[in-house]
Amino acid sequence: VNLFAALERMRRAFAACLGSPATGVRDCLLKEAQEIRREDVEACRRIGELGATLITEGSTLLTHCNAGALATAGEGTALGIITTAARKGKVRAVYVDETRPLLQGSRLTSWELVREGIDVILITDSTAGAVLAQNGVDAVIVGADRIAANGDTANKIGTYPLAVLAARHHVPFYVAAPTSTVDAATPSGKEIRIEERSANEVTHLAGNRIAAEGVRVYAPAFDITPNEFITAIVTENVILRPPFLTAIAALDSAGGKMP
Amino acid sequence: VNLFAALERMRRAFAACLGSPATGVRDCLLKEAQEIRREDVEACRRIGELGATLITEGSTLLTHCNAGALATAGEGTALGIITTAARKGKVRAVYVDETRPLLQGSRLTSWELVREGIDVILITDSTAGAVLAQNGVDAVIVGADRIAANGDTANKIGTYPLAVLAARHHVPFYVAAPTSTVDAATPSGKEIRIEERSANEVTHLAGNRIAAEGVRVYAPAFDITPNEFITAIVTENVILRPPFLTAIAALDSAGGKMP
Repeated sequence: VNLFAALERMRRAFAACLGSPATGVRDCLLKEAQEIRREDVEACRRIGELGATLITEGSTLLTHCNAGALATAGEGTALGIITTAARKGKVRAVYVDETRPLLQGSRLTSWELVREGIDVILITDSTAGAVLAQNGVDAVIVGADRIAANGDTANKIGTYPLAVLAARHHVPFYVAAPTSTVDAATPSGKEIRIEERSANEVTHLAGNRIAAEGVRVYAPAFDITPNEFITAIVTENVILRPPFLTAIAALDSAGGKMP
Repeated sequence: VNLFAALERMRRAFAACLGSPATGVRDCLLKEAQEIRREDVEACRRIGELGATLITEGSTLLTHCNAGALATAGEGTALGIITTAARKGKVRAVYVDETRPLLQGSRLTSWELVREGIDVILITDSTAGAVLAQNGVDAVIVGADRIAANGDTANKIGTYPLAVLAARHHVPFYVAAPTSTVDAATPSGKEIRIEERSANEVTHLAGNRIAAEGVRVYAPAFDITPNEFITAIVTENVILRPPFLTAIAALDSAGGKMP
């Protein structure tokens, strides 16, 4: 949803630029794009700082997919929190889900965290249950693709099982996202339409078929995590706590700048 | 555990053969091996028949890993139930988890079920949460590697998250296994030691590296599903119901032949 928010800003900038002949339209749009980038860098930095306050010393964390420097203009949302907490010496290790089918966890998140000198333990997605059951995780931190007005969160497929497992093992489950990801016009997760990905992403890997012939494939890009499983949503301005409907309404009426 | 039970039978047969000079040791061992095979075929058949009674008409099922004809001497345990129910016209479709890291679901289970003419929908392991949340599944059926005296079940990594999700969505969760898988000498899942697999199984696929360099890997072969998440355990003799401690004790004292 924040991609479309950025596009809408560019569209508005374009309309405004047309009315100011003093500046070329290209320079005017470039200025707006650079401003969006600057704001995203700053939002990531503030999400990292705010979120790091939630992490206790010596924590082992778990994350899913990639919500890092490769997915944002800054240091990332979920990974912004993890790297900020790590620099403060709070992080013992990070379990990274490989995140099938596109392996953003094993390919991207692992790479970013290893580069930061963080101890990365790569697991298959379905190993998270065993790790949580063994009391091996102090907090789960994920990003978000869209957050509804009630806090229901659409994020990379596999987020919802993690949230259910975290709740069962009394492990806090944090969602990290800029306020531009909050879509107050969508009442709940039920109204979020989930994109379906190509069957090839599951049946093939690096061009090689890895599944039997003759199967159908169901490959939703995202799943919905109901608000009841979310401990807190970390934005660049504020840490939202349940009830999220109230917290998000307050955020929205303050134009995202709620303290 | 049933592999070791079979080895123990062969060891006993060997000792007995040594005392009977009339038969060659080789023929004597072959006879015992063939008997074990015959019993396994029959156990699978009976598990299939018994388990199929649990499946309602028009069911969509979900299974994990491979507990089929490629993993047993007969038609399989979990897949024995699914194929038997399918032949009775009860099965609408089967969701098959790909089962990372070794992809037994996409490679083996899918192949077996497609061959049976069953409608197979392949999903990544972490998509099961979304499928269950959409009320897309009527029952989850898995095999077992070892069942403790209280019913706690060790099975392929990823079984436990499925069980937790099935419980949340009020979907029955069935374990299918011959009585030789029940290990009454192990009080609970806590005492089951879990084998760890090679890191390469997660970091590589078909010889190609699919993960960033510098990561550690945690790759347990199995996880433990606590008995509270299991609706029933289908053996070749009886459908065990909670409380499993009592049901398994009765089974054990009857030498596995409990009605």
